[in-house]
Amino acid sequence: LLNTFGKAENRIALANWARKKSNNPIVELLSLAAQPGLVSFALGLPAPELFPIELYKQAVDFVLTTDEWALQYGAPYQPLKKHIVSLMARRGVECHEDQVFLTTGAQQGMALVTRLLLDHCGQVICEETVYSGFQQVIEPLQPSIITVSTNLETGLDVEAVESVLASGRRAAFIYTIPDGHNPLGVDLSPDKRAYLVALARRYGVPIIEDDAYGFLHYDDSQALPMRALDDQWVFHIGTFSKILAPGLRVGWIIVPRHLISRMSVAKESIDIDTCTFTQRTIAAFMEIGNLSEHISMLRQEYRTRRNAMASALNEYFPAETQWTFPDSGFFVWVELPLATDVGGLLRTVIEKEQVVFIPGESFSVNPASPASHGLRLSFSNCSLNLIEEGVKRIARTLKTFL
Amino acid sequence: LLNTFGKAENRIALANWARKKSNNPIVELLSLAAQPGLVSFALGLPAPELFPIELYKQAVDFVLTTDEWALQYGAPYQPLKKHIVSLMARRGVECHEDQVFLTTGAQQGMALVTRLLLDHCGQVICEETVYSGFQQVIEPLQPSIITVSTNLETGLDVEAVESVLASGRRAAFIYTIPDGHNPLGVDLSPDKRAYLVALARRYGVPIIEDDAYGFLHYDDSQALPMRALDDQWVFHIGTFSKILAPGLRVGWIIVPRHLISRMSVAKESIDIDTCTFTQRTIAAFMEIGNLSEHISMLRQEYRTRRNAMASALNEYFPAETQWTFPDSGFFVWVELPLATDVGGLLRTVIEKEQVVFIPGESFSVNPASPASHGLRLSFSNCSLNLIEEGVKRIARTLKTFL
Repeated sequence: LLNTFGKAENRIALANWARKKSNNPIVELLSLAAQPGLVSFALGLPAPELFPIELYKQAVDFVLTTDEWALQYGAPYQPLKKHIVSLMARRGVECHEDQVFLTTGAQQGMALVTRLLLDHCGQVICEETVYSGFQQVIEPLQPSIITVSTNLETGLDVEAVESVLASGRRAAFIYTIPDGHNPLGVDLSPDKRAYLVALARRYGVPIIEDDAYGFLHYDDSQALPMRALDDQWVFHIGTFSKILAPGLRVGWIIVPRHLISRMSVAKESIDIDTCTFTQRTIAAFMEIGNLSEHISMLRQEYRTRRNAMASALNEYFPAETQWTFPDSGFFVWVELPLATDVGGLLRTVIEKEQVVFIPGESFSVNPASPASHGLRLSFSNCSLNLIEEGVKRIARTLKTFL
Repeated sequence: LLNTFGKAENRIALANWARKKSNNPIVELLSLAAQPGLVSFALGLPAPELFPIELYKQAVDFVLTTDEWALQYGAPYQPLKKHIVSLMARRGVECHEDQVFLTTGAQQGMALVTRLLLDHCGQVICEETVYSGFQQVIEPLQPSIITVSTNLETGLDVEAVESVLASGRRAAFIYTIPDGHNPLGVDLSPDKRAYLVALARRYGVPIIEDDAYGFLHYDDSQALPMRALDDQWVFHIGTFSKILAPGLRVGWIIVPRHLISRMSVAKESIDIDTCTFTQRTIAAFMEIGNLSEHISMLRQEYRTRRNAMASALNEYFPAETQWTFPDSGFFVWVELPLATDVGGLLRTVIEKEQVVFIPGESFSVNPASPASHGLRLSFSNCSLNLIEEGVKRIARTLKTFL
């Protein structure tokens, strides 16, 4: 029977978005860059030597010994929600367990909120230079992306958001990373946060507050998350990936209470449960260990790395370049003179200097954007020596490109 | 500033699919049913007393002691793919590691293939009585669902699929569960598998072969998965949920090789990685333990439970009813006389008899479907005594409904 029919000549027909997708030259470059000994400023990886392995091992042991539900399907784990409520209180966010929605990491948080709010060919508002994972998540819905610019001192241009909304354009949501912006390394100013929340309320357009990095703040004072200012129009996305370990894939969204059941339907449809086992071991870790102290240690460590990168940039980078000094998160954004061939620079530093970074265009919504002469350097996953060494090597090559 | 703007009266605008969604009366009933002491035939839960906790604990300990990448972001774990290739070989499926795509469980497998293949308002072919999680996953894309019927002895009506395709309707894929159909408990016959694969090739329409239950087969002979007949037009979805533990959230898809990079983009956008930690602990478990032996033990155990349920149905259920005797999986499908008020029956057995099942309408694409006088009984998560007791109690109430 198989043979009588013969084979169709055509290949499997993909959905539109997947068909249009050309191979990403950066992904190809990065795979070139997967050589040992390479200095990588490319990915936002936390430092694995800072994972609290011993305590986590105790937590796992405790769970597997005492909890017969640890490996079964199961409702979101209430004790973990309780811990998240306390964690959020440290940031000035008052919330209740029945507003905490557990997710398979922050990226899934975004995917779920998008699924809940965005229609096919709908509209969203975000920054012109934006986390690439956000672009990926909305792409299959083929939305109109309305972009606003970002000030490298104060964050997203809130007045531009107001103009968009006042003109009557109807967006499903406004997306931003207010602390430790990825890739720009800027924090949204307190005034702008209040302004943006006011716009969300006035125009009835919710905010997705992506807070992957908010607990890793290097100053003593920190602006309140927007969720602390409003509990109806802000979806606050958090995660254990950067404060505990990303390999556990647990995050959360603080959601307006009346939307929890809708979120559950969306969640069930994409992976049923957040990993029951890691939910429970994280909760046990938070019982046994002291996540607050762990976070304080992380802040100190990453602050030192940030400082090392800033010093190295000061020392080695040419005067025609400028960069951000992040108060939170993992990323420094460097802007090169407008005409610099950033792709060529990347290729050369990979081949000649064994260093890798992400070129700005990976984060830009429009090809001809200001981000195309930028680059993102991550300091989170390198020793102080390698940070200096890597910056020095990029600088050496960069001089031949200016 | 917040006050000057005032509050928008309207609530957050949801995407179309989420707006239309009314509350699900079954979900409400099931939450009523979450009382201790209840006999649940409702959910497809594996038996937790059969989880290999001790060996898994050793595996976890080994991983946390030896593998410094266990809690970090990471590429799909190659040794786990290798184990999956061997596992698939047991089923007669030849595949290569670079065709194995790791997922956060089988449900995510479905979500990813759907994302890859189905456009907004596209068309899909599935059975009229179909796994509810499949309906949930396609719902936001608002597709036309072309249904075919299912024969309770031989599975999906392949000739009906041929008529649809011959009429020129262009489906993104054909979805089916060939082994241990959920909810119908039927296996697709070998002839129909070959026929369906031939249709897929002839018309260029891929098959999603959802194989959540295929390893739990209770006869000595078992039909080959469709993926064993064709490596280009079949997306074969597998999972550790039923053969190891669902709380680990690891599954896989066997994918045509050229689509792996597209799948990776889709996967990254929805949760970045499959839980690194559970990927590695499962691989370690497969090194230390013997998953094949474990599966043999499970088959024996679940076979006994299936037999117990079949005996109880024979003994207690009235002559006007009929049911399937599943060769694989967790589910028995019972059909009641056409006019039976299944919803009323469910409410009464919950309240008066402390037993719960899922009514057929939860699985029907069209409200006026034949499934509406059916019900699904799961035997996987009850002791032999409770299986008999529960069936007896349903039968007692059922007699008052006929």
